[in-house]
Amino acid sequence: MTSSLIRAISHARNERDRFLAELQDFLEIPSISSDPLCDPDVAMAAAWVADRLKTLGATDVLVYKTGKHPIVYGEIKGASAGGQDKGLPTVLIYGHYDVQRPDPLEEWESEPFVPEIRGDELFARGAVDNKGPIVASIAAVESLIQAGSIPVNIKFMIEGEEEVGSPSLPGFLAKHETMLSSDISLNGDSGMAAVDTPTITYALRGSVETKLTIKGPSVDLHSGLFGGMVHNPIHALAELIAGMHDEQGCVTLPDFYQDVLAIDDDERADLAKIPRDEAFSLAITGVPALWGESAYTPVERTGARPTLDILMIQGGAQKSAIPATAQAIISMRLVPDQSPERAYEQLRSFVELNAPKSVTWEMSLFEGSRPSFVDRNTPWIAAMSKALESSWGTRPLYDRIGGSIPAVSMLRDQLGIDSVLIGVYRPGDNLHAPNEKLHLPTWERTIETIIRFFNNLEG
Amino acid sequence: MTSSLIRAISHARNERDRFLAELQDFLEIPSISSDPLCDPDVAMAAAWVADRLKTLGATDVLVYKTGKHPIVYGEIKGASAGGQDKGLPTVLIYGHYDVQRPDPLEEWESEPFVPEIRGDELFARGAVDNKGPIVASIAAVESLIQAGSIPVNIKFMIEGEEEVGSPSLPGFLAKHETMLSSDISLNGDSGMAAVDTPTITYALRGSVETKLTIKGPSVDLHSGLFGGMVHNPIHALAELIAGMHDEQGCVTLPDFYQDVLAIDDDERADLAKIPRDEAFSLAITGVPALWGESAYTPVERTGARPTLDILMIQGGAQKSAIPATAQAIISMRLVPDQSPERAYEQLRSFVELNAPKSVTWEMSLFEGSRPSFVDRNTPWIAAMSKALESSWGTRPLYDRIGGSIPAVSMLRDQLGIDSVLIGVYRPGDNLHAPNEKLHLPTWERTIETIIRFFNNLEG
Repeated sequence: MTSSLIRAISHARNERDRFLAELQDFLEIPSISSDPLCDPDVAMAAAWVADRLKTLGATDVLVYKTGKHPIVYGEIKGASAGGQDKGLPTVLIYGHYDVQRPDPLEEWESEPFVPEIRGDELFARGAVDNKGPIVASIAAVESLIQAGSIPVNIKFMIEGEEEVGSPSLPGFLAKHETMLSSDISLNGDSGMAAVDTPTITYALRGSVETKLTIKGPSVDLHSGLFGGMVHNPIHALAELIAGMHDEQGCVTLPDFYQDVLAIDDDERADLAKIPRDEAFSLAITGVPALWGESAYTPVERTGARPTLDILMIQGGAQKSAIPATAQAIISMRLVPDQSPERAYEQLRSFVELNAPKSVTWEMSLFEGSRPSFVDRNTPWIAAMSKALESSWGTRPLYDRIGGSIPAVSMLRDQLGIDSVLIGVYRPGDNLHAPNEKLHLPTWERTIETIIRFFNNLEG
Repeated sequence: MTSSLIRAISHARNERDRFLAELQDFLEIPSISSDPLCDPDVAMAAAWVADRLKTLGATDVLVYKTGKHPIVYGEIKGASAGGQDKGLPTVLIYGHYDVQRPDPLEEWESEPFVPEIRGDELFARGAVDNKGPIVASIAAVESLIQAGSIPVNIKFMIEGEEEVGSPSLPGFLAKHETMLSSDISLNGDSGMAAVDTPTITYALRGSVETKLTIKGPSVDLHSGLFGGMVHNPIHALAELIAGMHDEQGCVTLPDFYQDVLAIDDDERADLAKIPRDEAFSLAITGVPALWGESAYTPVERTGARPTLDILMIQGGAQKSAIPATAQAIISMRLVPDQSPERAYEQLRSFVELNAPKSVTWEMSLFEGSRPSFVDRNTPWIAAMSKALESSWGTRPLYDRIGGSIPAVSMLRDQLGIDSVLIGVYRPGDNLHAPNEKLHLPTWERTIETIIRFFNNLEG
């Protein structure tokens, strides 16, 4: 190791408790981007990031207003130990300071926004998704600065709308193309294939969300007086939903699989190394039996195959009435070369073909993001692979994960910037669920991994 | 008309505005029996009834405590014009002071518990179901008392749990058999077959309600990371619900129709006189097309055929997760000779047979009531028929309605007391829906009808 790398890593280790305290402070802000009541908290989280970037010594720190939640930006100019700028590469660090809703609240063992350390784990909404990684990247950059050697130019772009589909990001990218110009993006919003298993994610699913409303009678009707002569909108909705999958777990929307790229044998072999097999998947989810396309493994089904899930269904109340309406939020996860626009049209076609004449319906597009796929054979991936191997003592796995990070495809499509994707969450860390938690030793290794990654990029 | 009848009717007409003010006062109490937050209001409504019965001059007025909401009781001894008790018949007036929830609140044009008169109609939750009829019967009895002739012995039994299935009533009837002993029950909780069409209801459906919970993963799971390998509980629930009816609108529970009595030709001819045909039913419900068993008319489908309706479905939230559970409240409306116990077992069997192994489930029984059927050829029905004809100038129709009034079958089964069923609500009066309303001229005629009914029972 170079002496500056040694200095940077020892700074990170010496300051670990302060970094952790900063993370806890950040986690206390309920920055739920989907809840308008939390708008002031989301703004406070943006200000928290901007202040921390200023403390770090970043220049051009700005909180960019958008139609909804701001994007925080700041730069750190690279300067190697010798003080010479040798045309250093530029890394765009991406993160999001917004979090998912904590519901159902009653299932949390500690308050979602009162971070609590139990053993090696820190429990709080946002601990792994994505405040932990944001603080880790700030800690890594601080450590390099303190070591007197910043081997790359760094740009931070921390947004506040990832959990609602990053609707403001495309406009921001288009408007600030020159400012954002970078060689690669470092994205810590992914996860690990298994406990203690360093992982580089090379593919993410896209997504599209829509709301389907079924309308029956003009008002709620007494279920005794009218039951038997009107089609209950809840029934009509259930019948449509039931028809969206066949008995093999395949999605039945017209042409749904037409644009899906097949998995080749090489990739299938790589994915088979991921230790999320059937027994593991049963244990981690707690379901009595797995479900889905039987021709594919659980890793393939969630990473390389498209899916359709109802995220929410609602109709009626605890009263003796046939409700006037029933609603569902429908989410599809997409893989290359599907697009949100086409998937949405396929869903509309399905409903047009299958909705009964006894009800009417409405469908509204919420948000969509494209699937993304990164070339595994680049110097950027090699630098991260080496950094992970140094930090963990084992070579990383290459994983496809089923989640969606809109920024990855937007940066690729709009600015030509690829992403290197890592993350701190392990299976069972309750992402988007009650008791979200961060494994602190993993987080500390991630700080060191980022330091090493930057170091590996130098010259 | 006898002079005492004339006196009673003119008292009712002279005091109409006071009776209406009393009803408005009563309607201001949000006595929602299914909402524990309203328990004090429900108790206040019981006290309101007890006070009014005392003002009326009733004896033995008591507010009987039950496990949930009280039952109000009071008696008025009969005394004919001549002052002689000639072994007068005893009529048990039944009513319920509890009301349904007002949701969805935003669809009310005026506040549900701030009664508002617009034209000939009084808008408020409970206006027709069942506070209007309670005040009408008190007004009728007051008018007879003021006229100096009470041709029958009267017992009031006004409960507070009808909208939650009358769970305390069986125990009350069993405990107070002697006190309640009566020749007939007058029940104003039914309705009218059409506008300006006097109606005697001779059959009611029974009901059974249950909650079905589907359990999938042990916690909410990120829909991207896990979508495709676990069976979403919302999907599993939708698939079960979709399977509960066939394409003809028939319920598919095993043996569901086994105990259903067929409608004979005579009854079918009588029911054909009810003017709720297909065009009317479309207009009143606002649905784009009717639905249900095509071999039966709308009147038969809702009155003489059993049905299954989902009253409420709920699962997930507006977040990117596959929920751990999904729930539905399922209601079945039953006709003779079905029973709530057997229907519940049929539903359980259906779920046992059809629930997939990828989820687990729980079902809990809420409440049930038996269907009821009254002989149309009794002096009691004849007396009411004559009273309705005098008040409306037209002979009444005989209707079967699809609602359930648990008290009717309980009084029949436990105490051998049949019911004469009339009511003030007309199609479109938004029973159990926003903007429930009472047609005031109909309510006034109902007061006179009750006066005449009592008069017709004398000697």
